[in-house]
Amino acid sequence: MKVSQLLGERYKERAFEIESQNLMTRGGYMKAVGNGIYSLFTPAKRIQNKIEQILREEMDAIDGQEVLFPVTMPASLWQQSGRWESVGRELLRFKDRSGADMVLGMTHEEAAVHMAMNVAGTYQKYPFMIYQIQTKFRDEPRARGGLIRVREFTMKDAYSFHTSQADLEKYYERAYRAYERVYARTGIPEVVAVKSDSGMMGGKVSHEFMLLCDIGEDSIVTCPKCGYRANMEAAETIVENIRDKSLQPLKEVFTGDAKTIEDVCALLKSDPKKSCKAVVYQRNADDSYVLVFTRGDLEINETKLTNYLKAEIHPAADVSEANLAAGNIGPVNLDTSATVLFDRSIEGAENLICGANKPEYHLTGFTPARDLSAHVEFVDLSKTQDGFECPSCHKRSLKVSRGIEVGNIFQLGTKYTEAMGMTFDDPNGNRVNPIMGCYGIGVGRLMASVCEVRHDEYGPIWPITIAPWQVEICALRIDNPDVAAEAKRLYKHLKEHNVDVIYDDRSVSAGVMFSDADLLGCPIRVIISPKTLSRGCYELTTRTKSVREDIDPHFAVSSILSQIAEMTAAVNAKVPEQI
Amino acid sequence: MKVSQLLGERYKERAFEIESQNLMTRGGYMKAVGNGIYSLFTPAKRIQNKIEQILREEMDAIDGQEVLFPVTMPASLWQQSGRWESVGRELLRFKDRSGADMVLGMTHEEAAVHMAMNVAGTYQKYPFMIYQIQTKFRDEPRARGGLIRVREFTMKDAYSFHTSQADLEKYYERAYRAYERVYARTGIPEVVAVKSDSGMMGGKVSHEFMLLCDIGEDSIVTCPKCGYRANMEAAETIVENIRDKSLQPLKEVFTGDAKTIEDVCALLKSDPKKSCKAVVYQRNADDSYVLVFTRGDLEINETKLTNYLKAEIHPAADVSEANLAAGNIGPVNLDTSATVLFDRSIEGAENLICGANKPEYHLTGFTPARDLSAHVEFVDLSKTQDGFECPSCHKRSLKVSRGIEVGNIFQLGTKYTEAMGMTFDDPNGNRVNPIMGCYGIGVGRLMASVCEVRHDEYGPIWPITIAPWQVEICALRIDNPDVAAEAKRLYKHLKEHNVDVIYDDRSVSAGVMFSDADLLGCPIRVIISPKTLSRGCYELTTRTKSVREDIDPHFAVSSILSQIAEMTAAVNAKVPEQI
Repeated sequence: MKVSQLLGERYKERAFEIESQNLMTRGGYMKAVGNGIYSLFTPAKRIQNKIEQILREEMDAIDGQEVLFPVTMPASLWQQSGRWESVGRELLRFKDRSGADMVLGMTHEEAAVHMAMNVAGTYQKYPFMIYQIQTKFRDEPRARGGLIRVREFTMKDAYSFHTSQADLEKYYERAYRAYERVYARTGIPEVVAVKSDSGMMGGKVSHEFMLLCDIGEDSIVTCPKCGYRANMEAAETIVENIRDKSLQPLKEVFTGDAKTIEDVCALLKSDPKKSCKAVVYQRNADDSYVLVFTRGDLEINETKLTNYLKAEIHPAADVSEANLAAGNIGPVNLDTSATVLFDRSIEGAENLICGANKPEYHLTGFTPARDLSAHVEFVDLSKTQDGFECPSCHKRSLKVSRGIEVGNIFQLGTKYTEAMGMTFDDPNGNRVNPIMGCYGIGVGRLMASVCEVRHDEYGPIWPITIAPWQVEICALRIDNPDVAAEAKRLYKHLKEHNVDVIYDDRSVSAGVMFSDADLLGCPIRVIISPKTLSRGCYELTTRTKSVREDIDPHFAVSSILSQIAEMTAAVNAKVPEQI
Repeated sequence: MKVSQLLGERYKERAFEIESQNLMTRGGYMKAVGNGIYSLFTPAKRIQNKIEQILREEMDAIDGQEVLFPVTMPASLWQQSGRWESVGRELLRFKDRSGADMVLGMTHEEAAVHMAMNVAGTYQKYPFMIYQIQTKFRDEPRARGGLIRVREFTMKDAYSFHTSQADLEKYYERAYRAYERVYARTGIPEVVAVKSDSGMMGGKVSHEFMLLCDIGEDSIVTCPKCGYRANMEAAETIVENIRDKSLQPLKEVFTGDAKTIEDVCALLKSDPKKSCKAVVYQRNADDSYVLVFTRGDLEINETKLTNYLKAEIHPAADVSEANLAAGNIGPVNLDTSATVLFDRSIEGAENLICGANKPEYHLTGFTPARDLSAHVEFVDLSKTQDGFECPSCHKRSLKVSRGIEVGNIFQLGTKYTEAMGMTFDDPNGNRVNPIMGCYGIGVGRLMASVCEVRHDEYGPIWPITIAPWQVEICALRIDNPDVAAEAKRLYKHLKEHNVDVIYDDRSVSAGVMFSDADLLGCPIRVIISPKTLSRGCYELTTRTKSVREDIDPHFAVSSILSQIAEMTAAVNAKVPEQI
């Protein structure tokens, strides 16, 4: 490929806040076609192809069979699994020309069961795993960050089928390792797996693979002491309440306009930790109210709440219908139609400030053990925080960081096979539902994530294993016949040696050529100019600037091949063994 | 891959009439998910991957840049080109969660212009070609024949941009040759290019690549004398009318219930060639009537008619609204609101039977030159037939055959760049619309087409270049430790030599194993059994049965590699040179 022919423009002006989106837009990798919908130019497509090849190799290595499911599916499949009803508007539903209900696939559990149904009727066929690399559509309300969160994307999704939970768990470990290998091979071995909430997928055990970085949308809870790692959504919160010397009586105090717990605590000169706040939600299905009490310094973890209620919820707008005094809601003498829940942080607390259930008044001295019914159940419904107790090693060592989810794996159980009626005959002739696992990686998001953590101010620094081209030849002063002849010859020889090479043959200044090269991010650059030729050499530099050396034109190809081999070995050194 | 693990079932029962659909269903290649929507099992996906790789190589060889357009696109793109309005219900339109109008891509001219717009502003960037391999959806009313005509499919579509028609034509020839290479490399060098109608794509010159075979949906017109080839839709019809000795006067004759031209001619003991029939259509847009007169033995070519009218049409159901006497419509004394057209076959004809425009009567002696207004224009609106005059060499040599369209190429002109406002600055500083070409190949249809012409009664006979596996090892009597050990060792060695190999390790009868192997269609089979081992050898056979030989186990790998090389060379021998 020659840069003169490469479609796409590279420019200097900052385009977006998020660095991967900024650099990949400025670098001519992609162009928005609609909200969260992109076209990819050749550099991005080449990276994507290389990532796909790595995914294919790693999936094949764990006995995966590549298949292809359709993007468009009849609604009946999703009705069988129950997700036609249960999944929200991110599932795009449409009608075809005959008026039949259809969906755009956002995930393919149903299609995987449909494929395997009737062709895996005996236990001898198990376990097996099928995977595809295919376009998906998820009608995200908030597409953002370029390829980080889009509506249409290419995904590798895999589905395994097992005759027992033990067999699934064994396979799950192999898949987990295959994922670690994928991230290492794509140049981001620092990706960590965290326990996650299974959400709409069903099943119990699941992990997300997280690339820690500031623009991540997920909060990750880690313990540097013991290695515990979980998504905030799934992290158990352990709250310590300090015992007071004595219990105060409940007492009504005038708090006037102070409504938020921060305002009330400020007014009463109290630590928010010594308060109990009320947060009100409504169930999406019927708008019925859910009232949650938690400690004033904590936030509700809506995923935990959703899972506990087994219902989708949203923050309540108007609480008067539930007979609640907004800003003064409290747990004592409460008269409401709402479902009332107590977070575990309230258990064992003493002498708290809380609402008095009447305008302009709060209570002090609220002590749940004394003031609440003995039947009250305390549930873990809040988010953990920096410095909280680790649920694993019980040190006060938790850290909360941001991360981008670059993959996930789920133990699904029999949710889909049961709903859709897929069975096999076990050795005793009993008909049993197979147990499933599923395993996903978004290709475009992975590419953008690598850019997010592998760039400098000038452009991406692509790892050698996924770079659009391994080598860029920069011919400075192409009007000089020696430069042109040498560059052309090197280009030809590198192609003959199957090196992915791009050749900048434009008649542009060194400044333009190098800043464009920085944006293309090829790991190795070879500069041929009148100056290098007058020294009798070419100059080889790396995108990271760690190498800058003159190379002998007669041995240029082998010097470059050595550099490629060295860089590839450095990436591979961090790839863990297959299981 | 081991057959014991391969998901999918192979069975004997005939499944469908069309052989590729039958064999690929029976062979476990695919499963219908909905009407015209399929999941592909691993054997089909592997073939598809190999075809995609050939396409990629051939597109790269003609300076193509691989990109990726989205499957889902905002309606605005299609509104800009005008196709939101002009394309029928095969374009699937839907609304996203925000209520915005969107489409599922059935072709990507709009997306290609969108990508190239603003990044190819000067003539120096031209020509360039961008291509993708991506899922498309076309809401076909009549999906049929398995992968031959589906609603969702994988397609390679390419778009070239040029500064002049001459440059487009030069590139068009390269693309044409690249297509010939693709078909030869996929094992069907007999594909022929025919001139075609450009249909909804716009533009003037276009070709379809046709695989002649009985189940094809297209009629192809060829001339064995001079090599002329065209799709029936685009083939000029040249009709010879025999001069009579004398002209008869117009005369009304009673024909009673005889309505069709065949019945009337039978009643009057006349050759249908000596008659003039009326065919009535309605324009889709406003239901207005179009009346076409043609010779009684010919059929109307609706594509020619659509192009002439520049309007979509459908056969009229009820003609009374146009003041027409169904079954007795004739060109003389006609009083109608319909648009009236005369096919060229009527020009110069004499003494024809035609309708009398009143019930139960026809006319004889109709002679257009005498009986029609001198202003009547005769237009080519009918289909040509076997034995008709060739429009190229003018011999009476035309042949009509059936063919499957396995690709098409179009000279688009400026239809899209003009409508969407894409321009470049020419050397004189003028803003000009680039001229486009587009080039498509459906991957799934190509695979099914190869099966359609490369099979026997037992299964597909895949060409070595696209076979799901090049070699199948059949271990007969896997319970025999020698057989198991030898088969396992050969399998391992072949994989080490990067041979695509599948190993049937099941404990099944020779009959079952061989009939399954026939359905998988691998070109080379190696049989290891107690019998072959007792002779001190393996048996190598080809799927075509043309080779059956004992090979020495010590040289098995090299024997197999030679066989692969020989078969590959035979395919490559038919691949024309690149232009």
